[in-house]
Amino acid sequence: MKQKVKPVSPGGMRDYFPGEMIFRNRVIAVIRQQLEGFGFDPLETPALERTEVLTGGNPDFAMSIYRAEIVQRGQSQEEGISDDRETSLRFDLTVPLARLVAANPDKIVLPFKRYQIGQVWRGEKPQVGRYREFMQFDFDTVGASSMLADAEVIQTMSAILRALGIERFMVRFNNRKVLNGLSEVAGFAGDKMNGVLRVLDKLDKIGLEAVVTELRREPDNKFDESALNLDEPAIAKILAFLELSGDTDALLAELPIFFANSPTGLAGIEELAQIVGYLRSAGLSETHWKIDLSVARGLEYYTGPVFETILLDLPEIGSVISGGRFDELVTRFTENGIPATGASVGVDRLFVALEKLNLVPKQETTVQVLVTVLDKKLRKEYIVIAQQLRDAGINTSVYLGDEPLKAQLAYATKRAIPVVVIVGQDEIEAGTITVKDMRKRCQEAIPRVEIISYIQQVLGRV
Amino acid sequence: MKQKVKPVSPGGMRDYFPGEMIFRNRVIAVIRQQLEGFGFDPLETPALERTEVLTGGNPDFAMSIYRAEIVQRGQSQEEGISDDRETSLRFDLTVPLARLVAANPDKIVLPFKRYQIGQVWRGEKPQVGRYREFMQFDFDTVGASSMLADAEVIQTMSAILRALGIERFMVRFNNRKVLNGLSEVAGFAGDKMNGVLRVLDKLDKIGLEAVVTELRREPDNKFDESALNLDEPAIAKILAFLELSGDTDALLAELPIFFANSPTGLAGIEELAQIVGYLRSAGLSETHWKIDLSVARGLEYYTGPVFETILLDLPEIGSVISGGRFDELVTRFTENGIPATGASVGVDRLFVALEKLNLVPKQETTVQVLVTVLDKKLRKEYIVIAQQLRDAGINTSVYLGDEPLKAQLAYATKRAIPVVVIVGQDEIEAGTITVKDMRKRCQEAIPRVEIISYIQQVLGRV
Repeated sequence: MKQKVKPVSPGGMRDYFPGEMIFRNRVIAVIRQQLEGFGFDPLETPALERTEVLTGGNPDFAMSIYRAEIVQRGQSQEEGISDDRETSLRFDLTVPLARLVAANPDKIVLPFKRYQIGQVWRGEKPQVGRYREFMQFDFDTVGASSMLADAEVIQTMSAILRALGIERFMVRFNNRKVLNGLSEVAGFAGDKMNGVLRVLDKLDKIGLEAVVTELRREPDNKFDESALNLDEPAIAKILAFLELSGDTDALLAELPIFFANSPTGLAGIEELAQIVGYLRSAGLSETHWKIDLSVARGLEYYTGPVFETILLDLPEIGSVISGGRFDELVTRFTENGIPATGASVGVDRLFVALEKLNLVPKQETTVQVLVTVLDKKLRKEYIVIAQQLRDAGINTSVYLGDEPLKAQLAYATKRAIPVVVIVGQDEIEAGTITVKDMRKRCQEAIPRVEIISYIQQVLGRV
Repeated sequence: MKQKVKPVSPGGMRDYFPGEMIFRNRVIAVIRQQLEGFGFDPLETPALERTEVLTGGNPDFAMSIYRAEIVQRGQSQEEGISDDRETSLRFDLTVPLARLVAANPDKIVLPFKRYQIGQVWRGEKPQVGRYREFMQFDFDTVGASSMLADAEVIQTMSAILRALGIERFMVRFNNRKVLNGLSEVAGFAGDKMNGVLRVLDKLDKIGLEAVVTELRREPDNKFDESALNLDEPAIAKILAFLELSGDTDALLAELPIFFANSPTGLAGIEELAQIVGYLRSAGLSETHWKIDLSVARGLEYYTGPVFETILLDLPEIGSVISGGRFDELVTRFTENGIPATGASVGVDRLFVALEKLNLVPKQETTVQVLVTVLDKKLRKEYIVIAQQLRDAGINTSVYLGDEPLKAQLAYATKRAIPVVVIVGQDEIEAGTITVKDMRKRCQEAIPRVEIISYIQQVLGRV
């Protein structure tokens, strides 16, 4: 006998069963509607890209990605690998957007606003709740350098959360130019900036003292490139920066003084001020947004405003929608830079949050009515009833197995189907139909002609 | 200066721009609604599967698929390939369904009806209109051996096409058991059956004479396994089979006589008769379905009924929804077979057909209103207007570039945005707003308070 294949998925990959998919589809529909409301259009790119497109041709590219190669028909795998240009699975949706924009100067009319939903793949070690394949939902504006575009990203982030029923959230934003200005005012080398940001990013986790220790640390040996080795005046200036606080207007007054000697910092502050002005015009409640100087966002390609969104009742799950301006990414492909800004909805985190906040009703199936098979001779009758219900817009399944009625009712219960229809020879003769409300556990025989209005009532539609 | 990366996609892959995506999303929504109406629930599986799951561990597996391997972070590509079990990109959605059902006997309540939309990948040579990445849209019932399930597949296929506005189509169906019975009645070895089907499948293309030549052909040498070498009585019987014709009832009367000595054939005829009965009960017009003995469908895993759908006005594009019963596929993974039947919507073909039949209105953008920036000082005013429109459910973009009004109007024309709003200092003072209907090329100054009702009227909503 032929050996069986084990029915398992690759590590870090998962299936989505109906209960979860119904939930996800509903959330995605809400987000999509908000994005179209703000003028973002749908777009799709292939899952596979040439590897150098994804890595920028950087041999030290610091992310584990999936390389994909065609194994030719009917050849053994070692022989058959094709000579096609090397391809890999995309790890985000931003790099493919930059590739598409660079490749289609005639087809893409700027400013161009698009959203894209799709799976991305990363070869990192799977952890609880972290998969190697996961969904991203990005929206970006390409070809607009105005801060109006960035303010609109924040407006959109806010609109999405409110449409999902979340009111207790805070969009926190900052500007990379302000952070870069820090090296100018604190007097440390610009190439240490990323290291400093990485340390500051850990402030919440490790505390102020450990941050200072990290900023001060001297190299253990000459190969220790991670040691920042900042001098005391620089550290003092960084600490002073971390102490800047107050409400939006206070910050916008203090910052120009602090960054008086940094043209980069001042440019960033001006951008922050413009965004604040636009958000106020849009009437976005100040309970939903604030400038937060500790926001840095990890991605290297950000060049200006950066955004993140914390749910006030679930801060531990981290930012659910994040992004920033990336004016340089398209220059990977073309001489002429094209400004761009946008954000990515952390769909998986958002699903977890909505579940914890009980904001999406649980539903295990889209089926609303199960027409049972009480008498196999009447199957054709059941088809007619089912079709009548479908024609009225009611999702209906006829039971397709061979089990007795009791097992069919147990099936409806297990599948959480809310309504069951039972018809036997007696009912046919009497012109009636038995409708069972599975949630209230009661049933009633009704005249056949009333089936649709009655079931709509049971489903709570009328 | 750093060398630029070429912004190109891998061969056989393509981007979908907004005009196409809007169209696709609309079609997908219609299909999804029909499927849920028939009680199919959404499901998703990963793009990657273990290679042996996809090939069934068959070393001669006859399809070019993409193998995918993780290239580890920060290591050179040759060193870094991981030791994970070998994975590949799925080439269809049916094998992953069988894997999922076999792996989750406790979680999946049978009969189980699911639909799945997703990309699949095949390494075949790209051709015009044929890509290496393409979308599939499958619906299947697992755990039901009743022909009611197969009849329901045909009902669903028909409902999908009608919901898309297509009335001139024909679902043609047959049964693999009838075809297999042919080897019993014609007296040739069962292992020649697949070869005979392949030849019969070409009847439309090559004609009857060439078919006979192929059936008769002797091997050129002892390694020539493709030669069928049938004797004359067998060929005569096959020709008699091809001549069986007539309407449904005539065929159902003739077939049992032809297959009198073939238990397999008779079992297939009984299944055809049951399906016919159910379709008639469902009231499915006989202009939309017929038994067609020439339908075989290529896939090896079919075991019973097989279906295909031809658009009568576009027969040349081939079957747009096809499927069949595959009762043995799950036995790749488990001892206990689980019956299954279903179909796959050929989404790309269907898109081509709908375009040719002019059944989906062209729309290049979801944006309905562009609020232009006539005076940069008034940008905050424009944000307010845009938000007011969005709150009324009108998709609205504020122009985000720095160009003069004329260029902004050209932008709206290029993007096919139907309505443009123009406001300057004069309008603000007069409490008016200028609305330009880009399709009728006319504009009107209206009182600011009437903006929503006026624009809804221009958009044809009221």
